[in-house]
Amino acid sequence: MYYAEPIARLIEELTKLPGIGPKTAQRLAFHILHMEPSVVEGIARTLVEARAKVKYCSVCCNLTDQDPCQICADDGRDHSTICVVQEPRDVVAMEKTREYHGVYHVLHGALNPMEGIGIDDIRVKELVARLGDGRVQEVILCTNPNTEGETTAMYIARYIKPLGVKVTRIARGLPMGGDLEYADEVTLAKALEGRREI
Amino acid sequence: MYYAEPIARLIEELTKLPGIGPKTAQRLAFHILHMEPSVVEGIARTLVEARAKVKYCSVCCNLTDQDPCQICADDGRDHSTICVVQEPRDVVAMEKTREYHGVYHVLHGALNPMEGIGIDDIRVKELVARLGDGRVQEVILCTNPNTEGETTAMYIARYIKPLGVKVTRIARGLPMGGDLEYADEVTLAKALEGRREI
Repeated sequence: MYYAEPIARLIEELTKLPGIGPKTAQRLAFHILHMEPSVVEGIARTLVEARAKVKYCSVCCNLTDQDPCQICADDGRDHSTICVVQEPRDVVAMEKTREYHGVYHVLHGALNPMEGIGIDDIRVKELVARLGDGRVQEVILCTNPNTEGETTAMYIARYIKPLGVKVTRIARGLPMGGDLEYADEVTLAKALEGRREI
Repeated sequence: MYYAEPIARLIEELTKLPGIGPKTAQRLAFHILHMEPSVVEGIARTLVEARAKVKYCSVCCNLTDQDPCQICADDGRDHSTICVVQEPRDVVAMEKTREYHGVYHVLHGALNPMEGIGIDDIRVKELVARLGDGRVQEVILCTNPNTEGETTAMYIARYIKPLGVKVTRIARGLPMGGDLEYADEVTLAKALEGRREI
């Protein structure tokens, strides 16, 4: 045993976090041991409180501390449009554009047969349930533009189109500020395919 | 406000840790929110306990939960030799060699006039105090082989040599498994200077 027991345990606990290996955990641990005790207690309290308070919104499945969440409870937003995303952080990314005023649906994942993630592992049936009352007019599929995200979008589109709702997919194309020369061929092909009259 | 308040606060608290920027904090936060509450409570408890229990050893200044620390309290070790290192993690690195059986002294830093770290900011006087009773025969300076570490070693050597103790510096040379061709010239010069008869 090279470390005093509380230090060893601290390092071990920190390695439970994603992307934190033994070396990073050690660095974090020594930093924590030099922090003010009150600051450390603050971090610890926030961890426990956040985990205890945060739950899923019963409408859109986003993480929230109130139910329904702030966005679903907002009458100023357009409840006839649902933007479907994979993760809570994608909601944040969309909100930052300040261009979207509808509501969301968070799937918490994407279909991935290789990793055994099927349709019952993501929140698709909760989405379908929201389409029952005829209020929703458009579902915008904003899953990631990669294999899993595309598969998920395709699957959901086929599933919900028969319900008579308009289903759209976010545009794939050249990123702003990008360079045609450096774009990969799949993106370029998608950008060409998605061209619009100006 | 894009995040529910407890999530926003969790992200903010996590960015207080070194090397954790907003993006990493966000990733950690979402991971934590999907962990078992008992695991999160375990991490939080360990943080607070480690910070509360761990203190400085009154002999060697290493971080410890008992005083004197396990190494200083070990009669099986050679208390006539002190290895001086900058940080607690350096003690661990030395212990891992299994080649050193003396005791340690942790400076908690190195002299760095550019950052205003002077002789009173590192644990030098605690080291000098240990040399008073004549039990110590050798002090091995194992500060890092960079500007700050070399300066610190030089300073300490001049300070304690008049006390009649043997002062040595850890060897600088080619790292094992290294390649002469790729060694920088300073290391190579030091390696040449430190050559020994075989």
